[in-house]
Amino acid sequence: MQIGDPVSPEIATRTQASFARQGLMAYLGAEMTEVRAGQVTIRLPFRPELTQQHGFFHAGGTSAIADSAGGYAGFTLFPEGSSVLTVEFKMNLISPAQGEYLEAIGRVIKSGRTLTICQLDVWGVAGEARKHVATGMQTLICMKDRPDMPAAG
Amino acid sequence: MQIGDPVSPEIATRTQASFARQGLMAYLGAEMTEVRAGQVTIRLPFRPELTQQHGFFHAGGTSAIADSAGGYAGFTLFPEGSSVLTVEFKMNLISPAQGEYLEAIGRVIKSGRTLTICQLDVWGVAGEARKHVATGMQTLICMKDRPDMPAAG
Amino acid sequence: MQIGDPVSPEIATRTQASFARQGLMAYLGAEMTEVRAGQVTIRLPFRPELTQQHGFFHAGGTSAIADSAGGYAGFTLFPEGSSVLTVEFKMNLISPAQGEYLEAIGRVIKSGRTLTICQLDVWGVAGEARKHVATGMQTLICMKDRPDMPAAG
Amino acid sequence: MQIGDPVSPEIATRTQASFARQGLMAYLGAEMTEVRAGQVTIRLPFRPELTQQHGFFHAGGTSAIADSAGGYAGFTLFPEGSSVLTVEFKMNLISPAQGEYLEAIGRVIKSGRTLTICQLDVWGVAGEARKHVATGMQTLICMKDRPDMPAAG
Repeated sequence: MQIGDPVSPEIATRTQASFARQGLMAYLGAEMTEVRAGQVTIRLPFRPELTQQHGFFHAGGTSAIADSAGGYAGFTLFPEGSSVLTVEFKMNLISPAQGEYLEAIGRVIKSGRTLTICQLDVWGVAGEARKHVATGMQTLICMKDRPDMPAAG
Repeated sequence: MQIGDPVSPEIATRTQASFARQGLMAYLGAEMTEVRAGQVTIRLPFRPELTQQHGFFHAGGTSAIADSAGGYAGFTLFPEGSSVLTVEFKMNLISPAQGEYLEAIGRVIKSGRTLTICQLDVWGVAGEARKHVATGMQTLICMKDRPDMPAAG
Repeated sequence: MQIGDPVSPEIATRTQASFARQGLMAYLGAEMTEVRAGQVTIRLPFRPELTQQHGFFHAGGTSAIADSAGGYAGFTLFPEGSSVLTVEFKMNLISPAQGEYLEAIGRVIKSGRTLTICQLDVWGVAGEARKHVATGMQTLICMKDRPDMPAAG
Repeated sequence: MQIGDPVSPEIATRTQASFARQGLMAYLGAEMTEVRAGQVTIRLPFRPELTQQHGFFHAGGTSAIADSAGGYAGFTLFPEGSSVLTVEFKMNLISPAQGEYLEAIGRVIKSGRTLTICQLDVWGVAGEARKHVATGMQTLICMKDRPDMPAAG
């Protein structure tokens, strides 16, 4: 298997199902538009509710979808019955984040038994134009034998 | 002046006014609870709309308030008529982010003419309990002669 | 036990012994000057062999001692028979690194079963003057049942 | 001009000349093996003087050449008479750094007037085998009207 290959329907389903349990992604209006092996894309349409003080997308929104894209990119490669946590991530905000929507791509660079490293990139898309607005790096940890379900209660 | 000193009413007002223009902060329900010289606190009460897949606060929300806290901590030290942009930031998510609310404190470590470095810390607070859930670092750039106003139009 | 407490002679000895096996530290001329629980100090005297193009300490040397200081800070808290690896680290170089020597302090912020997070700080010291030249953050992994010995051969 | 294009002899010469003034690079035994527009390669042959406690390359050496590779990648794009400083960098150490030599490639992702962002990658090379051992990101600042010369004295 190569990073970017198609995934099985089972993996696509459990990845989308976990994403659907992220209250923040729904609240922001984010959508998971592609699930590949070790590579996930999330799209976030512009809304005034997502802005910083100059009217661009707030770095918090940019980072939120980048973090989820990377986390689920790693998750597609994890064994069934495990879940994913972000250990740390770093983002460089290279241009003002604007456009009709942002598109975040998380891509696994190194998949280990315990730790997985992802590259994170975010583009601002307006019509045909596509501008690189942020790039980052993320470390994930695979929680084995801890199914990806909401905490009980 | 020392980091953590009180600020003038003018600085408090323009910092709060800029924060109030961040659509994302209002939408998430975040509140700026303290403005000091080079140190700003932002509080984010728990809501199901802010969660990740296990029911904790999503790292995107944690990062959003940490980024704003650090950005405005730097902003309190900038000359009038300038604005602030985040160059990059890095967060380590050290414990599951839970509690009645999160509290992010951004604190200037080094204030330069062009670049400012902040430490970012986030706590999860529940009653008397206060748990350190994230720590990070941030680089800001001071945009001189660019007043902190929304883009025209 | 608190971070910064004295360590037992056994822990001091195995920490210094591991440090002594780091060929790079000896080659650069670095010395481990203090070992406390979760907190280690390393000193690096100035030499022209350590400079960057303007005659200051090269960020590579600054980072090398910061990384070792943090790694051994974590190591003091690990169970016997385990070893330490750096997962990632991030450094902000806040002032030109100069002085008679650099002093790096690594300090554990969060000690987990698998992962440990450290804060890294480096000062440039010249006589009585002590200037903060770099600050950073580091993630370590504890390799259990892998004694801290050189690879065989 | 594209990243990776050949550079003029003038740019190649002033980049190699600045590298030659880095005392640490010479002391470690590092060599700048390729200078392209926005992309520089540095090679570091293995020596016991470069190791950490398990006999692999120390992360400090890995980081030193990665930092220099990125710094000079940015420098190739700077106007004459300016110099480069690293603002911050972050490295993920994804595999034990071993081999006959390490090869670090710094590559500009975004070149701005003041700040430049680079991707950093390091490989361990042994015969035909080439293993990705570290990946990172770096922020540089262009110091205008400050020629790249050693401090006076």
